Amino acid sequence: MKVALAQLNYHIGNFEANTAKIISAIAEAKTRGADLVVFAELAVCGYSPLDLLENDEFIRACDEAVAEIAGHCEGIAAIVGAPQKNASAGAKGLYNVAYFLADGAIRSVTRKALLPTYDVFDENRYFESNALLQTLDYQGTRIALTICEDLWNLDDPSLYPSTPMDTLVLEQPDILINIAASPFSYRHDEDRRRVLSANAIKYKRPLFYLNHVGAQTEIIFDGGSLVFDGTGRLKAEMAYFSEDIQIFDTECIASAEAIGGQQLNDIAQIHEALVLGIRDYFNKSGFSTAVLGLSGGIDSAVVCALACEALGSENVLAVLMPSNFSSEHSIKDALDLVAAAGCKHEIVGIAPAAAAFDSMLANAFSGLPFNLTEENIQARCRGIVLMAMANKFGHILLNTSNKSECAVGYGTLYGDMCGALSVIGDVYKTQVFALARYLNREQCIIPENTIVKPPSAELRPDQKDSDSLPDYALLDQVLYQHIEGKMGQEALIAAGFEAELVHRVLALVNRAEFKRHQAPPILRVSPKAFGSGRRMPIVAKYSV
Amino acid sequence: MKVALAQLNYHIGNFEANTAKIISAIAEAKTRGADLVVFAELAVCGYSPLDLLENDEFIRACDEAVAEIAGHCEGIAAIVGAPQKNASAGAKGLYNVAYFLADGAIRSVTRKALLPTYDVFDENRYFESNALLQTLDYQGTRIALTICEDLWNLDDPSLYPSTPMDTLVLEQPDILINIAASPFSYRHDEDRRRVLSANAIKYKRPLFYLNHVGAQTEIIFDGGSLVFDGTGRLKAEMAYFSEDIQIFDTECIASAEAIGGQQLNDIAQIHEALVLGIRDYFNKSGFSTAVLGLSGGIDSAVVCALACEALGSENVLAVLMPSNFSSEHSIKDALDLVAAAGCKHEIVGIAPAAAAFDSMLANAFSGLPFNLTEENIQARCRGIVLMAMANKFGHILLNTSNKSECAVGYGTLYGDMCGALSVIGDVYKTQVFALARYLNREQCIIPENTIVKPPSAELRPDQKDSDSLPDYALLDQVLYQHIEGKMGQEALIAAGFEAELVHRVLALVNRAEFKRHQAPPILRVSPKAFGSGRRMPIVAKYSV
Repeated sequence: MKVALAQLNYHIGNFEANTAKIISAIAEAKTRGADLVVFAELAVCGYSPLDLLENDEFIRACDEAVAEIAGHCEGIAAIVGAPQKNASAGAKGLYNVAYFLADGAIRSVTRKALLPTYDVFDENRYFESNALLQTLDYQGTRIALTICEDLWNLDDPSLYPSTPMDTLVLEQPDILINIAASPFSYRHDEDRRRVLSANAIKYKRPLFYLNHVGAQTEIIFDGGSLVFDGTGRLKAEMAYFSEDIQIFDTECIASAEAIGGQQLNDIAQIHEALVLGIRDYFNKSGFSTAVLGLSGGIDSAVVCALACEALGSENVLAVLMPSNFSSEHSIKDALDLVAAAGCKHEIVGIAPAAAAFDSMLANAFSGLPFNLTEENIQARCRGIVLMAMANKFGHILLNTSNKSECAVGYGTLYGDMCGALSVIGDVYKTQVFALARYLNREQCIIPENTIVKPPSAELRPDQKDSDSLPDYALLDQVLYQHIEGKMGQEALIAAGFEAELVHRVLALVNRAEFKRHQAPPILRVSPKAFGSGRRMPIVAKYSV
Repeated sequence: MKVALAQLNYHIGNFEANTAKIISAIAEAKTRGADLVVFAELAVCGYSPLDLLENDEFIRACDEAVAEIAGHCEGIAAIVGAPQKNASAGAKGLYNVAYFLADGAIRSVTRKALLPTYDVFDENRYFESNALLQTLDYQGTRIALTICEDLWNLDDPSLYPSTPMDTLVLEQPDILINIAASPFSYRHDEDRRRVLSANAIKYKRPLFYLNHVGAQTEIIFDGGSLVFDGTGRLKAEMAYFSEDIQIFDTECIASAEAIGGQQLNDIAQIHEALVLGIRDYFNKSGFSTAVLGLSGGIDSAVVCALACEALGSENVLAVLMPSNFSSEHSIKDALDLVAAAGCKHEIVGIAPAAAAFDSMLANAFSGLPFNLTEENIQARCRGIVLMAMANKFGHILLNTSNKSECAVGYGTLYGDMCGALSVIGDVYKTQVFALARYLNREQCIIPENTIVKPPSAELRPDQKDSDSLPDYALLDQVLYQHIEGKMGQEALIAAGFEAELVHRVLALVNRAEFKRHQAPPILRVSPKAFGSGRRMPIVAKYSV
């Protein structure tokens, strides 16, 4: 049997576009001789529609899309992911299902058994679990069809009580198909190959794995759909970070040559993911032009270069906003970047606004010294200028804060924390440096001086980040073990970090929760990003 | 048997304070002759600790707190809620449990069966479900102990496959005890009485229900612990919105006089809840003074009056920030309120800052007319002034946006949407008027002119809210049916709202998702508040 894997980029709730894309892929697969074409988990509505699933009309729109798609399945069958109402009397829940469509109609429905409810996943909020999976037969091939997580309890058997594949394989399927919505992190490609290969080995069947591609605000899907033979060897790997339709003959998988699979390093993957994340945010929200503040520092330089790559440099406006504390080299470094990246720029000094606030507040602040308040006023004046540019010209403001700053609260709410989308809020400062070097791999875009000078917010004379924070090389290690590694203070100290440092850093992380609560959505590239995957109380007395 | 219900206000993660409070209540209950004292669900750590539960050291701190509390249970038993590790080999999950403590030690553990995973609840994210509940015996009394949701499937049998009480009651308990963490909404007191009474009737046993009291950032617990006899009649009702410890003799419940229970109207309940919500946010975050912007309009007037009540008027600073478009009466109305409420005030005109931005942006905006951009600049200048006051003096900025504005995006991000806590972001504009009247019930605090004048943002000459929005009386109806009622556009039109109005309002609600994502936490008083209870994709093409 010839199986087409259609790895597509959907838009949440955009039924018209998603349905048209699916129907077009069915036609293409048919033209190319496929017997069956496979689409991703919740393909008709995009992943994840979240609480839109609670609206009856949204589910009806899904049903209608499936019916329309089924009408195009003549001479070819299709597997399409969608939500489905539990039709039992008195029930009002949903299933997360894979429709099997053939001969112009729905032939069968496979319901997801294991519902991930951790990190960014909330499937138990929306779906009921299905206790029993059954194989389906098509053109003499018996297919064990599962949905994403259903294959993942091999990775951590403690997560779920049941192992749906163990019973499913008793029905002697010929092939395994898994449709997924498996978000990117720079670790995920290896995990995925390992877990899927282990399934093929355990169940001794070839496995066809089909993933989403594209970004849904903060969640990025990297594609990378895979085919394994019945001994767990990788036989095909589809495009990463772009749409792809490929056709495989089930008879030829065993004899195909084994391949190694993607070996991109973390930084290269993060680069691809962020470019796609920016591009899809603009495409899907209907905007085409970006504005950002360019300080001469490394964070905004990297975001500017990524935006130029994602949107075209002609669609990026960099705004330089020097203050009385900005150094000469900052303007020069920023202009060097503008020249190298080829984007537009404006220079708007903030001194007049800062002075206006000083005079307006002179009475109330009479006799009190310059402190963090005045530093914040400068950052917030920049926020106003950037938002004014965005409002006046219909640009989207990109935020340029990095993960280290987000973690410890080293940023001004309503100031440098402004923006519709945080591009590098899941990238630690030390990774930002590596990303800058990577962006310069073919030609110098990020000025060398931007990379080598000591980081500074330039909000008071001779300020350096290291005045307030531990060196990033050390800080990022503590943060990584705490956030990604979920290590508490005792564990961190036992691991060799100094107690004083640990207490200081964890107290900062805890105290910054109220700021992160109002941060823009952050493109997720790590296994544990700030945002919907990490839910912390705001007013808690605890810094573990 | 004499049962003490200890309805207390906990602080998430504050083990020292929570443990001390529990131990002190044990001593008090013992002094007052109780045999058993009952504390709430997850009492030792507060509800809900969210992802703090994923940290081993946090769970260890819970274990240590329980051990310490057990040491104080001599001559009295206690029921205390806490998380507990699943100790089975290979398991790494948690249970949400009620410890039964007596004779200085843990006597037994009751695990929660039904785990709410909807609206603000995420219990499936953290806990494993317990399949089998068992009664426990103490001093000749057989107790059927359950945790919160375990009694709620009577209300909606479709939600859960199992009915834990149905098996538990086969063991012939003498009394039912339910420990809860049941968040306030202005509908919840009636729902709670109905559901709990139905349990007492169905199982023919007296029921002791113990709830949390106090606010954890946006989630407010109203207390109102209840006692029913075995025929479902309400026999006792504890304080609302404050701590309370009461002792009941199980032998005397049947013969006690039946009572009606709280009959406060919605607005009176909302008033109580918001005052508690403000007070606890400050108490638990270690701040004591608030700042807010006072426009002369009704929203900021109501928030100011609530803050004065919650914190003491001497701890509230109202900042009047007139612009070139502010009317004479706005200043007068604001000053009238300041005089009536007795709070401090400052007047900081924003014209100099607005003019500075105009000149700074003159080049970039050359030839373009005044529009929303300049309106937003004014709102954002006010945000800077307020945050400067908060930063300089250590105040917390209270946000004054109402739910109608939040819903349709009629507010400026980083402008009037600033603040650490949104006080009335779950109160529709029409309810804000009712709240103002309620606040004036004994003496006039909110000036009459503030209540009767047409709402205006005063960001351009002669601006009125009704220029941009439908009348609030109509808008709020559509919003309520859409948000609380989960009605989509077809349902709303079928219910009699004009199609054009419905499309316009729902498109606004959908488009404002990116703003709400960056809004402050909102005190939850309705059955469906913006925030963690309503999770929507940001870039979706759907306005149902």
